[in-house]
Amino acid sequence: MAAALGDPVRHALEAVLDAVRDRTDGAVADYIPELAKVEPEQLGAALASTHGVVHEAGDCDAEFTIQSVSKPFVFALAVDALGLDEVRRHVDLEPSGEPFNAISLDEASGRPRNPMINAGAIVMTSLMPGDTADEKFAVVLAGIERFAGRDLPVNEEVYSSEASTGDRNRALAYLTRSAGTLGAAVEVATLAYFRQCSISVNARDLAIMAATFATGGVNPLTRERVISEDAARWTTAVMTSCGMYDESGDWMVRVGLPAKSGVGGGIAAVQPGQFGIGTFSPRLDARGNSVRGVATLELLSERHGLHMLQHHGAPLSPIASLSRVEAGDADGGSDGDTVVALRGEILFSEAEEILTRLAPLVGDRGCLVLDFTAVTRVAAGARTIFSALPDTMGRLADGRSRVAVHDPDQVLGAAER
Amino acid sequence: MAAALGDPVRHALEAVLDAVRDRTDGAVADYIPELAKVEPEQLGAALASTHGVVHEAGDCDAEFTIQSVSKPFVFALAVDALGLDEVRRHVDLEPSGEPFNAISLDEASGRPRNPMINAGAIVMTSLMPGDTADEKFAVVLAGIERFAGRDLPVNEEVYSSEASTGDRNRALAYLTRSAGTLGAAVEVATLAYFRQCSISVNARDLAIMAATFATGGVNPLTRERVISEDAARWTTAVMTSCGMYDESGDWMVRVGLPAKSGVGGGIAAVQPGQFGIGTFSPRLDARGNSVRGVATLELLSERHGLHMLQHHGAPLSPIASLSRVEAGDADGGSDGDTVVALRGEILFSEAEEILTRLAPLVGDRGCLVLDFTAVTRVAAGARTIFSALPDTMGRLADGRSRVAVHDPDQVLGAAER
Amino acid sequence: MAAALGDPVRHALEAVLDAVRDRTDGAVADYIPELAKVEPEQLGAALASTHGVVHEAGDCDAEFTIQSVSKPFVFALAVDALGLDEVRRHVDLEPSGEPFNAISLDEASGRPRNPMINAGAIVMTSLMPGDTADEKFAVVLAGIERFAGRDLPVNEEVYSSEASTGDRNRALAYLTRSAGTLGAAVEVATLAYFRQCSISVNARDLAIMAATFATGGVNPLTRERVISEDAARWTTAVMTSCGMYDESGDWMVRVGLPAKSGVGGGIAAVQPGQFGIGTFSPRLDARGNSVRGVATLELLSERHGLHMLQHHGAPLSPIASLSRVEAGDADGGSDGDTVVALRGEILFSEAEEILTRLAPLVGDRGCLVLDFTAVTRVAAGARTIFSALPDTMGRLADGRSRVAVHDPDQVLGAAER
Amino acid sequence: MAAALGDPVRHALEAVLDAVRDRTDGAVADYIPELAKVEPEQLGAALASTHGVVHEAGDCDAEFTIQSVSKPFVFALAVDALGLDEVRRHVDLEPSGEPFNAISLDEASGRPRNPMINAGAIVMTSLMPGDTADEKFAVVLAGIERFAGRDLPVNEEVYSSEASTGDRNRALAYLTRSAGTLGAAVEVATLAYFRQCSISVNARDLAIMAATFATGGVNPLTRERVISEDAARWTTAVMTSCGMYDESGDWMVRVGLPAKSGVGGGIAAVQPGQFGIGTFSPRLDARGNSVRGVATLELLSERHGLHMLQHHGAPLSPIASLSRVEAGDADGGSDGDTVVALRGEILFSEAEEILTRLAPLVGDRGCLVLDFTAVTRVAAGARTIFSALPDTMGRLADGRSRVAVHDPDQVLGAAER
Repeated sequence: MAAALGDPVRHALEAVLDAVRDRTDGAVADYIPELAKVEPEQLGAALASTHGVVHEAGDCDAEFTIQSVSKPFVFALAVDALGLDEVRRHVDLEPSGEPFNAISLDEASGRPRNPMINAGAIVMTSLMPGDTADEKFAVVLAGIERFAGRDLPVNEEVYSSEASTGDRNRALAYLTRSAGTLGAAVEVATLAYFRQCSISVNARDLAIMAATFATGGVNPLTRERVISEDAARWTTAVMTSCGMYDESGDWMVRVGLPAKSGVGGGIAAVQPGQFGIGTFSPRLDARGNSVRGVATLELLSERHGLHMLQHHGAPLSPIASLSRVEAGDADGGSDGDTVVALRGEILFSEAEEILTRLAPLVGDRGCLVLDFTAVTRVAAGARTIFSALPDTMGRLADGRSRVAVHDPDQVLGAAER
Repeated sequence: MAAALGDPVRHALEAVLDAVRDRTDGAVADYIPELAKVEPEQLGAALASTHGVVHEAGDCDAEFTIQSVSKPFVFALAVDALGLDEVRRHVDLEPSGEPFNAISLDEASGRPRNPMINAGAIVMTSLMPGDTADEKFAVVLAGIERFAGRDLPVNEEVYSSEASTGDRNRALAYLTRSAGTLGAAVEVATLAYFRQCSISVNARDLAIMAATFATGGVNPLTRERVISEDAARWTTAVMTSCGMYDESGDWMVRVGLPAKSGVGGGIAAVQPGQFGIGTFSPRLDARGNSVRGVATLELLSERHGLHMLQHHGAPLSPIASLSRVEAGDADGGSDGDTVVALRGEILFSEAEEILTRLAPLVGDRGCLVLDFTAVTRVAAGARTIFSALPDTMGRLADGRSRVAVHDPDQVLGAAER
Repeated sequence: MAAALGDPVRHALEAVLDAVRDRTDGAVADYIPELAKVEPEQLGAALASTHGVVHEAGDCDAEFTIQSVSKPFVFALAVDALGLDEVRRHVDLEPSGEPFNAISLDEASGRPRNPMINAGAIVMTSLMPGDTADEKFAVVLAGIERFAGRDLPVNEEVYSSEASTGDRNRALAYLTRSAGTLGAAVEVATLAYFRQCSISVNARDLAIMAATFATGGVNPLTRERVISEDAARWTTAVMTSCGMYDESGDWMVRVGLPAKSGVGGGIAAVQPGQFGIGTFSPRLDARGNSVRGVATLELLSERHGLHMLQHHGAPLSPIASLSRVEAGDADGGSDGDTVVALRGEILFSEAEEILTRLAPLVGDRGCLVLDFTAVTRVAAGARTIFSALPDTMGRLADGRSRVAVHDPDQVLGAAER
Repeated sequence: MAAALGDPVRHALEAVLDAVRDRTDGAVADYIPELAKVEPEQLGAALASTHGVVHEAGDCDAEFTIQSVSKPFVFALAVDALGLDEVRRHVDLEPSGEPFNAISLDEASGRPRNPMINAGAIVMTSLMPGDTADEKFAVVLAGIERFAGRDLPVNEEVYSSEASTGDRNRALAYLTRSAGTLGAAVEVATLAYFRQCSISVNARDLAIMAATFATGGVNPLTRERVISEDAARWTTAVMTSCGMYDESGDWMVRVGLPAKSGVGGGIAAVQPGQFGIGTFSPRLDARGNSVRGVATLELLSERHGLHMLQHHGAPLSPIASLSRVEAGDADGGSDGDTVVALRGEILFSEAEEILTRLAPLVGDRGCLVLDFTAVTRVAAGARTIFSALPDTMGRLADGRSRVAVHDPDQVLGAAER
């Protein structure tokens, strides 16, 4: 019985995997022999929620190389290390409408079109602290391990192959070097980048890494802050417009989950504020995206309404009730106070509604008590306003503030949770 | 005193307008004389919330032609009229990385790159029902009026000028016609399109129109459903990746509000689920976007945390409390029931948390009562699960369901609000 | 016996046609039904020499529509009507590396890339004198008839089809119109252009038309000057770099005959100063060039060394002999004159050799007689120098010029032959 | 007096240099410090005729690095070393319409667009025999020295700078390497290429080198055959369509001399069959072409009619006269022979005219004597026909051939002169 309730998310994942398992189209990446050796039938998906639970289905422990899935995470690290302005001096943030390995370099500025294509990703890696490829890679690895919440090995065979066949990436690096946007010598940048691509992960790791974007930068399992909230937002925004290469627009329409795929067969997808998903299945379509990984995310989004822009119906009013409280109450109101029971999430729109509706009630006759007991979250931008109300609204004749706040869970005080 | 509370949103808008008013760069569009006649100093911004309040600042009644701001609204109408699949046979949905009047036509398929560039927008208009330009335009106008909630005039002088100088748009129409993607004769499509661009609106209209996307398709003032929820989501997704032409990626990073601008000086921006904003200021930058309109949205987003991907901190747990209720209660539990007080918005992630945590509590000893009193919204995908629980969980020895639901506001029942 | 000598050129043409006749690849143009009706097996080739003889082989009387083969001829007419500078304000002269119907419009200048692609050709036609399509076409037709030396019909069925299906060409016209480079209303320009493409010719016509470029602008049969020498040279230069679309470079390497093809199955090729060739065979390759027409020209060039840049071995010295003539001669030289027998073609290089070698011989002892009897041609640039020598070299003691010229065929005097 | 005749070509060159000397626009290349050190006022031009005389004006001994002027010469060497087919497997021969350092690589084939842009030139150098950069460069240098007819030094400072700043060229090399078209390791190819670009030449050298193309591959001073006639023709053809980058089409219209420029300030231009020109002036225009070098060639071409496609008027008929010779003559004709005095250059068109006109005269009554005394050149393709005539025409009653040839200068016999 309890089993039916037990892990509905795992059941949902399993059902979707079952639905896509028959897809046998696509082909395992074979530009290096090591990638071609993978067992093509593997299939796994994991979902990590922002409150720290991971649901797994299928081959979630199977390891594969992270490849391009590393790009948004290293971009986020670069943004925190250098600041967005400095990063934007080295890379643009526009969709290119072109494949992953397109040259896509602005001839005038020398900036790659965005950090999700190879040229831009190599530049990001080149900007990592350190003088050598080893030093830069150590920073990258440490960062990605914090995203994943565990130590991650490097697949040395894949790395050797990448390094020995990566002439096109070296070309991209030389182009950016020539244009003044590469932050290191070509061999330093490319070797660090090849090593970055060779980090070994599993679907569970990708889910947790993606969930770290969903929480605004905090690993939901280790509770460690990995990147700043700004870096998480900016990176998710870049994934939104550039994450799926030349089908990013279509992906946003159909699936609506900012995502990044890699030729190792992995995909990481983010539902901001909600969860991260990691999928793994080695066969790739013509664009280099995992066939069954894409199908899994499409079906999950469709079945469970996970589109980032999904409308969930209008919420109830944030004002649950208004009630008069007689003088002599526990709250000590004289002349009768008004208690306003608020509820739910108070973002910009809800704050606007509350303030608009309560304005006429603020007066001389009694205190207006805003009760946040049933409020689950107050947007950062709205917190200040509510906290300041008791001070700015002035005093009643009996000296009490015209507005009082009752906030037992401190949803107003939390700078960050 | 009350004034201070009175309209904080209007104050916020005014403060931002004051901050950008000094920007005198850019130039009024002058490719047709009628556009050049506008008073360049005009500046206005309006915000319409999803619960139907419009806040205005500056020149919100000043009229101007809608121009390209019409594109997403007509795309949405086309999607509802023909279905997404049919629409996608005529237009792609990918960012082009190119200016608004770029040719951007896939040579193989003949499909314009997306419906936010002129070629794609003309194709959308051509797909409207009707045989003549007048008939097609009548459908467009009626649709846009439902978005705006009022009758809208056409600026006939602008229309005449557009029609007499629109050779490039005719060229784009002939290209799509030649490729088989235009749904009407060139003169029919272009005249309807020129007329569409000449519809006269004000900033308040654009705010309400954008807010209609924010509600998932219902005009928040008239409460009329204008388009389907799907069309609203898909259109917002297209605005996300293609709305600001070749700076869409950067816009999504910096501002994070899906938006569309027009050379008439207007911009419409959406915060899904929250509000729509309309701005008006005639001077344009090199890309054809209103200089002060862009600055207004940037500053609003930055000051008030309006980025669509803004992280607002983790919400409180959706489980407010668990309490044992003795037998003989009003609820009539024998052997003690457990009341689970839920709260806030229950989307995928919250549903997952609730079900995961409650699974061990379902048993034979008493009923598990889920109290939705403080819940403000349940995502469509989660509603079914919760509603079905009493039936699927089986019965206690006393014949009562193992799980009961207390939902006084019917947040579970609402198919749509 | 005489037959063996009879028409070696015809024999050469026939032999080449026999060699390519088996080629059955390619397909007849079918974008309009009228073109698809043609008998696909037709094959003909004609060569018109600059001295006015036409050699024919195969189906040289079979008529077909001229299509794009008209482009260089109308370009030449435009150059003479407006001057090269004015023409270049409307069209660039650079190879585009793109197919015939590519848009290839410089976005900044609005100029089509060259007059051999459709956009550029339509602009050329639009610049013809006249206000209506009929008037402009009348000028085009009269010009092309002078190139061909006979009245030419228009295939009205093809014209009607072109006019009713020519949306892409209308698009190109609107683009150039919008950019300010089209010289007429779109319908005027395109209808005249469609009619131009529908002129009916045969392979013999194309040979004579091409030979008119080879003579520097004079129809070798009618002896009428059709265009200026400048226009002939400039047009041949444009054909050299742009005539065969995106294989122009390869064509110049392999075949070396400036040429232009049309989807009607015709090709016109020029060997400047030597001859023109016209071929006809309806099946086209993927680029829209006649499969067997291309093969015919390739084989002719290869077998008979017709490459424009073919090296023919160094010529003999232009100084055939130097001989002393005793006083009392018919030439009346005293003290012994020197007769310099010149020969062959005297272009820049030969003039340079003659003047360099003779300088030491000019002196006080006798007259230097330049005998041009065996000279077949003197380049325009060299004529002036030689003609002026008797005046500039001063006089001998006996009053005679130090240099005398003997030019019985007046190769020096001929301003143009 | 004699001075006036003395060197009219030098005078012509000097007059043109005087006319362009005032041009002070443009700027010396400064992407490496060594190039920026050059004296910007230097100006020189040399013309080398195919019969081995070099005319010089201005700074013809000033040395500069050859840079991109080396490209056609190395292409010619590659064609002779590998054959055209093999070379074309590594590079296309199409104009790119793009700047010299454009990437212009066919994404499908990996072939650079043509051998005159950097990517294509590096591939050509990579194909030279040898395993190391030194070995490959030795072949290049030896070849270029044979073109120039003297030993050439390398500017080691320029080489060092090129090697240390050539990241863009390394990028191009890696791209071709990645695509499988580069014939050596990247460092081998690029170091040999940088060294090739650093060869030091003067304007006189470039004139002789270009004249070696004009003669069909034989250095006109040393008389050494440097490359095959095919290689000379093919290379000149490539220069025709691709030599001046994105203004090749315009150059062919206005100047009509296949040419190649370099950022060192040199230009080499060819008039096939006639001469080569070398110019030197360091200041470059935006495209990287020497400002005064371009102006010099434009003015020379215009003033002296040097356009490759210049029409020189129709030549006289190649049949100078027909005369009956009585029996008992020195030529021993019985029954009266007919002597046909031919003259001038006999290319395809003239051969055609001769054979056509003489056919009726071949008969039984007497011998037809073709007198080639005044003929200066017979095209290779025509030689065979004329030589074979005595054998193929049969015999007269007295045993003599019906056709006899009188060819004292052996213009028919010369396989190559």
